[in-house]
Amino acid sequence: MVIRSKELCRRVLENQHKLIQFLQMRLCSNQKIQELAKYEEDDFPRTISSSIKYAVQPQPNQIQHQQDVGQQFKYSDISVRLAGPHQLQPKPDVDDLAFGKYFTDHMLKIQYHRRLGGWLKPEITPFENLVLHPAAKVFHYAVELFEGIKAYRGVDGRIRVFRPEMNMARMNLTAYRSGLPTFDAEEMVKSMARLISIDSEWVPHTESASLYIRPTLIGIEPTLGVASSESALMYTILSPVGPYFKPGHKGGLTLYADPKYVRAWPGGCGDRKMGSNYAPTIHVQKEAQAHGCHQVLWLYGEDHQLTEVGVMNIFMVYVNEDGVKELITPPLNGLILPGITRDSIIQLAKELGDVRVREDVITMPMVKKLLQKGRLLELFGSGTAAVISPIERIHYLGEQLHIPTLEQEDSLSKYLLKTLTDIQYGKLDHPWAYVID
Amino acid sequence: MVIRSKELCRRVLENQHKLIQFLQMRLCSNQKIQELAKYEEDDFPRTISSSIKYAVQPQPNQIQHQQDVGQQFKYSDISVRLAGPHQLQPKPDVDDLAFGKYFTDHMLKIQYHRRLGGWLKPEITPFENLVLHPAAKVFHYAVELFEGIKAYRGVDGRIRVFRPEMNMARMNLTAYRSGLPTFDAEEMVKSMARLISIDSEWVPHTESASLYIRPTLIGIEPTLGVASSESALMYTILSPVGPYFKPGHKGGLTLYADPKYVRAWPGGCGDRKMGSNYAPTIHVQKEAQAHGCHQVLWLYGEDHQLTEVGVMNIFMVYVNEDGVKELITPPLNGLILPGITRDSIIQLAKELGDVRVREDVITMPMVKKLLQKGRLLELFGSGTAAVISPIERIHYLGEQLHIPTLEQEDSLSKYLLKTLTDIQYGKLDHPWAYVID
Repeated sequence: MVIRSKELCRRVLENQHKLIQFLQMRLCSNQKIQELAKYEEDDFPRTISSSIKYAVQPQPNQIQHQQDVGQQFKYSDISVRLAGPHQLQPKPDVDDLAFGKYFTDHMLKIQYHRRLGGWLKPEITPFENLVLHPAAKVFHYAVELFEGIKAYRGVDGRIRVFRPEMNMARMNLTAYRSGLPTFDAEEMVKSMARLISIDSEWVPHTESASLYIRPTLIGIEPTLGVASSESALMYTILSPVGPYFKPGHKGGLTLYADPKYVRAWPGGCGDRKMGSNYAPTIHVQKEAQAHGCHQVLWLYGEDHQLTEVGVMNIFMVYVNEDGVKELITPPLNGLILPGITRDSIIQLAKELGDVRVREDVITMPMVKKLLQKGRLLELFGSGTAAVISPIERIHYLGEQLHIPTLEQEDSLSKYLLKTLTDIQYGKLDHPWAYVID
Repeated sequence: MVIRSKELCRRVLENQHKLIQFLQMRLCSNQKIQELAKYEEDDFPRTISSSIKYAVQPQPNQIQHQQDVGQQFKYSDISVRLAGPHQLQPKPDVDDLAFGKYFTDHMLKIQYHRRLGGWLKPEITPFENLVLHPAAKVFHYAVELFEGIKAYRGVDGRIRVFRPEMNMARMNLTAYRSGLPTFDAEEMVKSMARLISIDSEWVPHTESASLYIRPTLIGIEPTLGVASSESALMYTILSPVGPYFKPGHKGGLTLYADPKYVRAWPGGCGDRKMGSNYAPTIHVQKEAQAHGCHQVLWLYGEDHQLTEVGVMNIFMVYVNEDGVKELITPPLNGLILPGITRDSIIQLAKELGDVRVREDVITMPMVKKLLQKGRLLELFGSGTAAVISPIERIHYLGEQLHIPTLEQEDSLSKYLLKTLTDIQYGKLDHPWAYVID
């Protein structure tokens, strides 16, 4: 019987429950899995030495809590209420996954009530609707924030989460800026790991998909004044996801760059992952699509600085005036979301060594000039949902600018994508991968 | 028995149900009510002639709907499910009202589902919690918007709503900018009027309070992509409210003006009443309070333009270089919410005729210079929730600027407040008051 790879993926996903038992019981010893992993690794040379000193990241225990936040929750207090067999959802076909359309069987919830002294105990429950007062602040004043993390099924069958402590540190910074309670990031990572562990069958058995983790924090105090919410709900839902861009999307992204729309500005919150940064982009995204483009390229200022692309950070590879290849991305100047993938790319490229890495302003006149001189090599977006997405064309002030990202033989974006996914799927042993047992 | 006015208010509010019956059945004929109204009116001269030509306002039927919005809802299709006696809430003491803390017995809900063809039929139900999928776009991307309107119990006992068609026109503009469905504003006004009529006992029988009407539109499609919501819920809740600022607040507002925080910017959505404009302000509001101020004065640009104050528009009264008294407010340049109270003030001041009215930029250096020369007379905020709020002090770059708003003998802000509330409470017959029978 000939089974094509697409069909195989589908069958694996649909039958992963049985398959896991089958593999564990009958076919694969750990040794076999390790051999398979080694074989995969040899396809691509290891370029990251284990002696690398990684930049010091903000640690969860370095978070400064608000003085009056009250008691913190602890993972050890977690309660688990499992879904009954009748509540379990069928797992979708891997080709149908798209992005954020299906959800797993359980969720994590942690309530905060200042009048009850702070955070309550974490609870894992069957996936269920939220029941909220219609005056809850989240519905009126966008008192809400989120994170996006992914869990990957490694080639060794183990589940890896990519740098969750970075997301939790960022989530606390966003909570602080939103007037929502901060929390102990390490306890939250452990609580999420438990949730993933319970719904582990939902982590797709394929490298073309992953389990998207969506921690969300909303203000639920039911009063209409514009003020800090005295009550909050932090919840995490899980969604098996395929590519962020539509299935069938081949080639690079096309971008719509119109300086009349501005995503973020100095003195605002564009560098925090607040819900309020997204609503204003939806109309502009529709306009981009009406112009035949996939995403918006967000510009800022008189000099038309490139800031972000859709929901991603942006990178450019070019040859500078000295003939040296450089990777450049806009600096964290308050207009840019401090992406975890962005940070990882910067570190990986610095380790690679054969490209100069720089955080600096990129402007549209610069892009046009480099294109004219044939010195712009690649332009790509980066993010947890979209990973690394090459850019092919920019629609800018009536012009169509072709970007030769996909035509590079020695492509930096391809190398970075391969390295990142190798870490995520366990082909490269790396401290960025948080293993869930 | 001596009953003081505060106690009287409380008793009236607590017993308004019985009182209405009592008044209707026993004591007051309509004639008597009209006499009482006339007496109140004579306390303050009528200054608005009925021959005024009001500026043409955007009419609900002029709204351009999105092409693909689908079917509209109609008031005539409304269904009403009344609360049972056990569900009725006790009415709070008028002194306890504060802002948006208590809610009435019923609410209005209208669902929108693109796949079902558009808007469904309006429903009035007992006030109840919303049950929503945890991936609903409102929780993640702030796909939400609202309006604030007030209903007033007039001196003739009739209920008046202030210019609701203006709010509905603005709500449609906001919906369009948020990728949410637009609706027939006139049908919405009628549906809200029915709701208010059902909960009419909740409209306080006092001029120190009113019924705040909060129409809200949220995106409820349960998918995680940043995109238009294919499903939406428009609901309206009602809250009897006292003053927006804390009870016991005497004198004028003190403002914290720090140019490092920016509320809105060109190319953004600062001129639309989206939830996303509010979340970023909460932290700054806390900082204002930490500096001993009531509200934030939002500045913009190198020249420190005054844009808004807290959740209000801002007005200044000053003597210009030619010795002429002017009322000035920032223009609708995209940074400013087009307030209904703002619009009303501009029209009333133009009708008054003894002050020049101008929409133009006001900067902090201008404010300082005018103060030095003794030519700044008044500074005040305007909004539905806060009506007209005089400003007493600005904390600006380490300086404390005293504003003599409360010291004017011939106070324009007091005149405007009196005229507005006279229209709202039915002492002045005026087309801005929408009477609910």
